[in-house]
Amino acid sequence: MPFLRPDNQPIILGVVGDSAAGKSTLAGGIAAILGHDRVAVLQADDYHRHSRAERRRIGITALSPEGNHVDILEQHLCLLRRGQPILKPVYNHKDGSLCPPARLEPRPFVIVEGVLAYHSRALRDCYDVKVFVEPDEVLRTRWKQARDCAERGYSPEDVQVSLDRREADALAHVQPQRSFADIVVRFAPPAGSVGEIDAPLNARHLLRPTLAHPDLGPVLDAGGKGGFHLALARDSDGKPVDVLEISGSIDGRRAKAVEDLLWSLIPEASHLRAPLGRFTDRAGQTASSHTLALSQLLITYHLVKAAQGLTATC
Amino acid sequence: MPFLRPDNQPIILGVVGDSAAGKSTLAGGIAAILGHDRVAVLQADDYHRHSRAERRRIGITALSPEGNHVDILEQHLCLLRRGQPILKPVYNHKDGSLCPPARLEPRPFVIVEGVLAYHSRALRDCYDVKVFVEPDEVLRTRWKQARDCAERGYSPEDVQVSLDRREADALAHVQPQRSFADIVVRFAPPAGSVGEIDAPLNARHLLRPTLAHPDLGPVLDAGGKGGFHLALARDSDGKPVDVLEISGSIDGRRAKAVEDLLWSLIPEASHLRAPLGRFTDRAGQTASSHTLALSQLLITYHLVKAAQGLTATC
Repeated sequence: MPFLRPDNQPIILGVVGDSAAGKSTLAGGIAAILGHDRVAVLQADDYHRHSRAERRRIGITALSPEGNHVDILEQHLCLLRRGQPILKPVYNHKDGSLCPPARLEPRPFVIVEGVLAYHSRALRDCYDVKVFVEPDEVLRTRWKQARDCAERGYSPEDVQVSLDRREADALAHVQPQRSFADIVVRFAPPAGSVGEIDAPLNARHLLRPTLAHPDLGPVLDAGGKGGFHLALARDSDGKPVDVLEISGSIDGRRAKAVEDLLWSLIPEASHLRAPLGRFTDRAGQTASSHTLALSQLLITYHLVKAAQGLTATC
Repeated sequence: MPFLRPDNQPIILGVVGDSAAGKSTLAGGIAAILGHDRVAVLQADDYHRHSRAERRRIGITALSPEGNHVDILEQHLCLLRRGQPILKPVYNHKDGSLCPPARLEPRPFVIVEGVLAYHSRALRDCYDVKVFVEPDEVLRTRWKQARDCAERGYSPEDVQVSLDRREADALAHVQPQRSFADIVVRFAPPAGSVGEIDAPLNARHLLRPTLAHPDLGPVLDAGGKGGFHLALARDSDGKPVDVLEISGSIDGRRAKAVEDLLWSLIPEASHLRAPLGRFTDRAGQTASSHTLALSQLLITYHLVKAAQGLTATC
């Protein structure tokens, strides 16, 4: 079992970001690489204190800490980290109801997806790798419209009301968590593509020095030039970061070469090669994205290294 | 707050015994003495894995360890002991369904009632005081018939089938827990009262040396003679125990005198004097029992002393 730490404690990845920021899509590919039977996914939305109807009555959003059992999420993450099973609450996104709880057994990897999963120090201390996703806001609104109407029984007007109602809470509670992430991923349409909503997305990665990132030097020139750019920059808080840009228009051969090079950095996972970069497009079909695939591979690199105890940060 | 340990950890009482053995009735009076706002009650039945319908389908009883989340109960008790809140599962006894979970905040005292709550070493290590109730079997069957038909939607035939189905599991899993109790309480009709089902019950208490029991010497002669008897004996396993017998026919004045003496042993609780010994009689009316009151007071003595750290056993 090359992916189990000697003490059988799982490696924990956080994927945090606003509603419909693409958390599950990003996490899905990572779980596919690691193997679904090796990954337990914890949806922090399950820790909502109230049903959708109750939230409307009370006048509280699902993004507010007081609307969630944040302390119980802390406790459960801490238990999973120690290799213990939990009996977790269940929130039904289809009708917004609270359901009987369900067991979640720890597996070698645990992926926590949520809007408030870095809210407290106790939560943040549980992760091996912390990712924050912040897509272009126009893109996120479009994703939220599509998903909430198709899967969660909302009308387009409902979604807009929900977005408006949530804005203050997102700013107050979701956005500040960005500063605790090791990697900040931003998907955005290429400049000047405002009309072409299906243009392949660019991905920008802020790589903070809180993790030992791989040497991307050899990757930069793999399979040609262009489409892949690494530069030193200052974060919005003035602190130094690496910024890795992957262009949505990256040449397919070049993307494949970069992908191969990333795989070569985690030889212990190369037998797990899974189809990466899958997402559901506007027509509800499964499509694939080079930039998403490379994001997933980069994050997986850190999980595999953490599992080996080489880059464990705590 | 005289009842909080310096480290804010609750005192935990276990009340374990077969279905309808009188656990809630015994615990109810203890909670009344301590003050309901100072007591959190954890029903271990909430940790059933399956709904009543599922149990019937699978062919499993609610008394079997595999039919319960015993490991999660261990975890939750351990968390409560450390002063943490839990999000506990909820089982609806009325219709046998599993419900959304509910928060339980720790309070200075936690009373755990259940059929398997001493099943594992990890569970047993959580208690300050462990009580096992084993009423006369004819009495228990009558209690189960009355309660399950009145409150849980069973027919008398259902209850009999349930009793038969559970017998092997009770013997295999419930009964063995008796040996871990500090106090074993047995209510039984007085000898020769077979026909008179409403005769006041005798109570026998096995007082194991695992707790520092109060000096009952002064109590024995309080307010007269008779009705109250303490003797050295051997338990069914041959080990020495004190056996305290309280007769159902104890004279009212004598019972009151013994009660006063027990209160005097816990002066720090005397301002909490609450009506003791309450139970629901066959007509569904609230009645009161001297023997039940004295049992409740004796157990409360140990909780108050444990809260003072004077008799804490761990």
